[in-house]
Amino acid sequence: MTKPLDVVLAYHQAWTTQDFDRAMTYLAADLVCHAPAGRLEGAEAFRAFMEPFSRILISSRIIGAFGDETAAMLIYDTSTHPVADAPGAEFHTVRDGKIAELRIIFDRLPFEQARAVHSDRQ
Amino acid sequence: MTKPLDVVLAYHQAWTTQDFDRAMTYLAADLVCHAPAGRLEGAEAFRAFMEPFSRILISSRIIGAFGDETAAMLIYDTSTHPVADAPGAEFHTVRDGKIAELRIIFDRLPFEQARAVHSDRQ
Repeated sequence: MTKPLDVVLAYHQAWTTQDFDRAMTYLAADLVCHAPAGRLEGAEAFRAFMEPFSRILISSRIIGAFGDETAAMLIYDTSTHPVADAPGAEFHTVRDGKIAELRIIFDRLPFEQARAVHSDRQ
Repeated sequence: MTKPLDVVLAYHQAWTTQDFDRAMTYLAADLVCHAPAGRLEGAEAFRAFMEPFSRILISSRIIGAFGDETAAMLIYDTSTHPVADAPGAEFHTVRDGKIAELRIIFDRLPFEQARAVHSDRQ
């Protein structure tokens, strides 16, 4: 059986190379995501949240990756168009080879500040 | 030799029970911390950042904890006085039984929003 960490790393590789169709193949249809703005239910709702982020990504680098038989964790750095240094952390629960539940932690503040600067200029 | 994850869990247990003097015993004096607001150098600078957070903590719960021979990662939920649901993630590099480098990820936005509401009321 595929290890949870392998599933999560494959998902990560897919979305950070802007192949969200492939990223979706690692997600359970009824996935639950705990994101900074709240709870998202279903892979499509998750895609609507995460795919736009993948579009503003410039580069990413994994800092740490661990897993066991049921779960995996990642910490990574990203550089994005609005925010140069935007690290994130994820805790994934994997069932039957698909990501069933995930928690994403990142700092929304610099994104809000970038948005405010952008609005001021309009 | 003490495992990195044991050191990190002992540090976590100390600060989340508001025993920051004990928390400090797990930190290298020349520790480097990468926090959302920037880089902190030295255990005392780190204490000035982290101890005030421990004072507003109501409760905490570990979601995931993993480690290997050199590093450990934690994801946890906290409930704090200004923000009810404030999860955090940490990646620690441990040398000679002490935390030498750590990266902390959390969402500053709800803390900023709570501060703004507080300021409006003054």
